[in-house]
Amino acid sequence: MATTPPTRSPELRKDPVTNQWVIFSPARAKRPSDFKSKSPENPNNNSSSCPFCIGNEHQCAPEIFRVPPDPNWKLRVIENLYPALSRKLDHPNGQNDDSSSELSGLGWVVAGFGFHDVVIETPVHSVQLSDLDPSEIGDVLIAYKRRIEQIKQFDSIKYIQVFKNHGASAGASMSHSHSQMLSLPIVPPSVSTRLNSMKEHFNRTGKCSLCQVQSKDLLINETSRFFSIAPYASSFPFEIWIIPRDHSSHFDELDNKKAVDLGGLLKLILKKMALQLNNPPFNFMIHTSPIQVTDSELPYSHWFLQIIPQLTGVGGFELGSGCYINPVFPDDAAKILRELNVPI
Amino acid sequence: MATTPPTRSPELRKDPVTNQWVIFSPARAKRPSDFKSKSPENPNNNSSSCPFCIGNEHQCAPEIFRVPPDPNWKLRVIENLYPALSRKLDHPNGQNDDSSSELSGLGWVVAGFGFHDVVIETPVHSVQLSDLDPSEIGDVLIAYKRRIEQIKQFDSIKYIQVFKNHGASAGASMSHSHSQMLSLPIVPPSVSTRLNSMKEHFNRTGKCSLCQVQSKDLLINETSRFFSIAPYASSFPFEIWIIPRDHSSHFDELDNKKAVDLGGLLKLILKKMALQLNNPPFNFMIHTSPIQVTDSELPYSHWFLQIIPQLTGVGGFELGSGCYINPVFPDDAAKILRELNVPI
Repeated sequence: MATTPPTRSPELRKDPVTNQWVIFSPARAKRPSDFKSKSPENPNNNSSSCPFCIGNEHQCAPEIFRVPPDPNWKLRVIENLYPALSRKLDHPNGQNDDSSSELSGLGWVVAGFGFHDVVIETPVHSVQLSDLDPSEIGDVLIAYKRRIEQIKQFDSIKYIQVFKNHGASAGASMSHSHSQMLSLPIVPPSVSTRLNSMKEHFNRTGKCSLCQVQSKDLLINETSRFFSIAPYASSFPFEIWIIPRDHSSHFDELDNKKAVDLGGLLKLILKKMALQLNNPPFNFMIHTSPIQVTDSELPYSHWFLQIIPQLTGVGGFELGSGCYINPVFPDDAAKILRELNVPI
Repeated sequence: MATTPPTRSPELRKDPVTNQWVIFSPARAKRPSDFKSKSPENPNNNSSSCPFCIGNEHQCAPEIFRVPPDPNWKLRVIENLYPALSRKLDHPNGQNDDSSSELSGLGWVVAGFGFHDVVIETPVHSVQLSDLDPSEIGDVLIAYKRRIEQIKQFDSIKYIQVFKNHGASAGASMSHSHSQMLSLPIVPPSVSTRLNSMKEHFNRTGKCSLCQVQSKDLLINETSRFFSIAPYASSFPFEIWIIPRDHSSHFDELDNKKAVDLGGLLKLILKKMALQLNNPPFNFMIHTSPIQVTDSELPYSHWFLQIIPQLTGVGGFELGSGCYINPVFPDDAAKILRELNVPI
């Protein structure tokens, strides 16, 4: 006999890392395990006209590097053909923040100098990131790191947002597996908010909010170097964070060994998410620290990787208030994903 | 002969009201006037099973009030059948902020007390808000005001978010024209950010950032009491703000005369948006001040109504950084909408 799930009362939670408020409002007549993607991502396997496929390199914007550096590449980092920012604009390299912005009568403006790069994760059209071996996913992560190290040379770049859009409704315009890196001449607002929030927690408690977060109820899976959780104030149902055990402010401190370890955990989590949630479109984002600031200046900062499956839409409430409504409590999401077995 | 639009370089702008950074990145090979909704909202005209239609009141959650108060109502305010917050929870009425939140090991938590109401804008299923007369739209706005005045009695409610989702992909689960009011036991983060940003501008310049904003290039339409603009740092293409000329911190200071005036401008703007952008799904949100704070405590605050047509999706970059990428400069959007003629 089917049992009705116990009713939980709605509550609001504020995350000590993102400083965001979330309304947890359990959906009536729907159990957390019933959440499935309504628009599962169906990869387009037509590779004949895909510029990201091996052999079609001439259809792409210029290459930055490939791994390995020969015709049989396994991954490529290229310029985005339709960059959001321009690498050709004059930029005030070596100058300070203030000189690159000015007050007009209406608000602040900064020239759109920056880099918008694409990481092609595999030469084969039908292969998804989670199909790769842990060491191959590790190679993708190390490619992010290598590109970050190149861009660090530009003093006017303040932050690099690494992200992946998987599935058209999650923002992917190409079905061939890839991720993106957008290098910005500003520190974005959500990064400033996160750093301020972590600093406040650190000053008050003497501890890093992410080192402290290892709750058994929120844990999904762990390895010797990383652990994954459903965060306490998840903005989205089945949102997942993967966090390094070592307290580290910058993603680009990742070494090869850790990259393979993270690759294995990311693969497992993506496989679990696809199985449990009906292959949903998803985004992942690496949350790191501004590139011109050193570890010792940021004792409270700890990088992590955030994964958001696309299960619910956003409406006027979220756009207006900046709060999200999440129908799934994170301990329920964590339990479901923790107990799920997937063939790897 | 078709002319190529002049190429504009990308730039980043920060809004003095929202404090958000936006990347303006003109789309290649697409003129601002070519932006159309890819998923135009097709209203479901099947009213036989719609609980919001006149005659089906018994299928709804309890009514709060109707206008006029007789069986031939023109609008109704009812409880949401699936409220995000609970009006039945114990709430610390009359106590201060601190008592309603507590620090757990993982973050802050507040009991989910609040009101989630629905405003049914018309008794007729096939009628949209923009089909109503200015005075009828004014009645809807006055209904928001009346409900805010009722909720003000609850000291534990800090902010009321009024919003409208039009079209399924903008978050509307019912096609019958309606809006919503979510009354929260917290001040949402985007409201705190906005107030801090406006206060900073006021302290620095001695002026209100919205009183100052009357740029001819950004103007769309105006009346004696309100004006509409494409904001300088619009997060979304064809985003529109309607701003009262009078410096006023709270939406509920609206009187009947102003409500009819605003109703007429809102009708015009919604008609223009539907015609220019192929009847897009959209959201509107009223950005007002916290309800327990008086005008004199907020000399820098000025309420406004924000309209966002749904033309572009959100991906990992926006989720990660909190920045938006907008392919349409606001002066281009304003010019197109300003010069558009619509039959009213």
